[in-house]
Amino acid sequence: MIKTELDLLVFGSLLLTMSSQQAVVEHPVLGIRDGKIVFVMPRKDFQEGAYCAKKVLNRRDTLIMPGLINTHTHLAMTCFRGMADDLPLMTWLHERIFPAEAQHVSPQMVYAGSLLAMAEMILSGTTTFCDSYFFVDSVARAAMDAGMRAVVSQGFIDFPTPDTPDPSRQLDTVERLIASWKGASPLIQPALFCHSPYSCSPETLLRIKAAASRENLLYMLHLSETREEISLIQERYGRKPALFLRDLGVLDSATLAVHCTWLDEEEMAVLAECGVRVSHAPQSNMKLASGIAPIPAMQARRIPVSLGTDGSASNNDLDLFREMDTAAKIHKIATMDPTVMKARQVVQMATLDGAKALGLEERIGSIEAGKAADLIILDLNQPHLTPMYDPFSHLVYAATGSDVLTSIINGNVVMENRELRHLDLDAIMKEVKAIAKRIKKGHRD
Amino acid sequence: MIKTELDLLVFGSLLLTMSSQQAVVEHPVLGIRDGKIVFVMPRKDFQEGAYCAKKVLNRRDTLIMPGLINTHTHLAMTCFRGMADDLPLMTWLHERIFPAEAQHVSPQMVYAGSLLAMAEMILSGTTTFCDSYFFVDSVARAAMDAGMRAVVSQGFIDFPTPDTPDPSRQLDTVERLIASWKGASPLIQPALFCHSPYSCSPETLLRIKAAASRENLLYMLHLSETREEISLIQERYGRKPALFLRDLGVLDSATLAVHCTWLDEEEMAVLAECGVRVSHAPQSNMKLASGIAPIPAMQARRIPVSLGTDGSASNNDLDLFREMDTAAKIHKIATMDPTVMKARQVVQMATLDGAKALGLEERIGSIEAGKAADLIILDLNQPHLTPMYDPFSHLVYAATGSDVLTSIINGNVVMENRELRHLDLDAIMKEVKAIAKRIKKGHRD
Repeated sequence: MIKTELDLLVFGSLLLTMSSQQAVVEHPVLGIRDGKIVFVMPRKDFQEGAYCAKKVLNRRDTLIMPGLINTHTHLAMTCFRGMADDLPLMTWLHERIFPAEAQHVSPQMVYAGSLLAMAEMILSGTTTFCDSYFFVDSVARAAMDAGMRAVVSQGFIDFPTPDTPDPSRQLDTVERLIASWKGASPLIQPALFCHSPYSCSPETLLRIKAAASRENLLYMLHLSETREEISLIQERYGRKPALFLRDLGVLDSATLAVHCTWLDEEEMAVLAECGVRVSHAPQSNMKLASGIAPIPAMQARRIPVSLGTDGSASNNDLDLFREMDTAAKIHKIATMDPTVMKARQVVQMATLDGAKALGLEERIGSIEAGKAADLIILDLNQPHLTPMYDPFSHLVYAATGSDVLTSIINGNVVMENRELRHLDLDAIMKEVKAIAKRIKKGHRD
Repeated sequence: MIKTELDLLVFGSLLLTMSSQQAVVEHPVLGIRDGKIVFVMPRKDFQEGAYCAKKVLNRRDTLIMPGLINTHTHLAMTCFRGMADDLPLMTWLHERIFPAEAQHVSPQMVYAGSLLAMAEMILSGTTTFCDSYFFVDSVARAAMDAGMRAVVSQGFIDFPTPDTPDPSRQLDTVERLIASWKGASPLIQPALFCHSPYSCSPETLLRIKAAASRENLLYMLHLSETREEISLIQERYGRKPALFLRDLGVLDSATLAVHCTWLDEEEMAVLAECGVRVSHAPQSNMKLASGIAPIPAMQARRIPVSLGTDGSASNNDLDLFREMDTAAKIHKIATMDPTVMKARQVVQMATLDGAKALGLEERIGSIEAGKAADLIILDLNQPHLTPMYDPFSHLVYAATGSDVLTSIINGNVVMENRELRHLDLDAIMKEVKAIAKRIKKGHRD
């Protein structure tokens, strides 16, 4: 008998496919070859002799699930983590964050801060992220070094930024990004990010959207994060933000709107009609007192809503398990209905709906034969996960990122038994501490 | 030179005293003898030759702080963790929890479930808890075995309960508790808990309060957890709940009111006047959609507010770091003011204000010479805690219980480098899994 060759064979106690049927497999076996899932089956159907694998992962009391997808980050902001808390958003942004960015953001800082963020994300179960920042070449290089799947979005705003000092040269920055990263690796998707309709002119919003459409890239923007923005846009353009953007022609199914805290019914209808996808960052919205996005209402309109942590200056961690917990709870209290945002749905937001938000649902977000092998393995043998009546409940309401033992991205084991395989964590932390030392001095000067 | 003998000498990078001055000590040294803190000083003032210690804890990049105090738990409910989620409180309580309790709560179940909860609490930095349940003798024995500091409250309600099948014999249960545990150990304080003003008659509320006052014990009750309770009490007694309890004469500084979700201005004034202390359980209140307690308003009235996780059937974990994070964020969004509930204040709620809530502020809650040596040591050398501008920010917004390395209670090392010293975790989990198997079967029958 000829044996089927595999790169990796994974055994576990339980597997959540998170496919559209949300099938759960008890005592699963999973085969991986060339970065892809070859099969998922119950152990009783598995013929040991039919396969030979280069590596086998087999540990008792483990749960296998798709890797989590974080659809909104500003990774390099790990360098500013905890630098400015408990402040109003506009003070925080304009008096603390923007000045610090103007002074300290460089290709080196973005590389180091992003690499630190990736270590934290892998250690807490995230396998794909969508980052929006400057010097995105550094973010993409860091993702390649970490072995992470990434949507790397170049940020634009109508004032000089660290990587685009002359806003009239924004398209040059787009060209550089595309030349370097479009099609360069199956792990990296370039994308374009306009900061917001209040900080980007209609010309900028349109110009960047046109480039995104031409190159078939995801287009992102912060939408209606705070109440103040609504009146600003209303005054400036005589329309609510979502209506303004629709009329401008930048809303379609390749648009990812981040936050959407203050959308009303009419605006949600517009998003649903245009096929827009949403990234929801509840912890950041709470910490900055921005508002509570009407997520159950969006989901009722079948708008795909994913989860994002936002940057670690406004959260302050990148642990999507904690974000799931908060997402489940905040909407229960906001609607005074404990039956909304059920655990199973929240896990879907962090997996398959995350993939939909990024336009990657054909490749990732669920464990199915043919999809990329992006998955995580959790240790169930822990007091806070004992006993177990319902795995979805545990993932949302009891687990944290530190329960993740092993992480596989595109078939590549990037963490095994909590040891990072590709990153020198001590060196990364040392580098970021040195950057923070300079930032602190900058504050005192 | 005669050397001062110590049981334990602890070195660290940073120490938060959480005393009323909230002093922070860099490069601290801490001496412990006979369960008490002998001194805290900066390393530069420490004379190495002046002391000899039986044990030394010295690890780089560590933060030392008082152990966390969880002022509201139903520990044995770990056995029901994740059994019934995403349900309205009254359905959850009357159709799922109460029937399961009637069928399964026994001294053995309470011992096993409580021990599992204690393992989880020690592993996440809690050193003192205040539990309210049945068969509290089992809870106290488990706390002695785990080496934890505990307020163990006997629960009362006006229907037959597993340990008091005849409600008219409630005082017998009180007598048994006092005979067994009053003064029996410095770690254990017995207390009395009336389930709520809607489920206990005025006679029960008064009878139990009289016993508590006579024996100088803490008196606890759930107060205004849901909106429904307000109208119930209003109809039954023609007054708002806090006013009804004040007029009944059960509110004083030895009363701990739990939840207080729906107090209005007048009721908060009553609590402040009577010196009542509050336990706030935001995650449970969110998950059950009970409401958002007006905590900033209570704190403005100088009501001591502490933090509780509630039972793990309604949270579903016992990690006070996660509770701190939620407490900080939920009130920012509820008041639309990101400057309320600053990180430093939230850490105080989980430490010194926790001690105040339990009437134990002379003994625990801060690191000061003369107080009991209840403290935890966190590992700062981690990606999600890097860099560090402000330790309070990290504790609230970035840390989780799994960052706690070592825990000391009453001078006794109960966990060292994440190894539990007194508990056989595998045996405990096995026992609770067996109980859960019986509970599951009970549901199917």
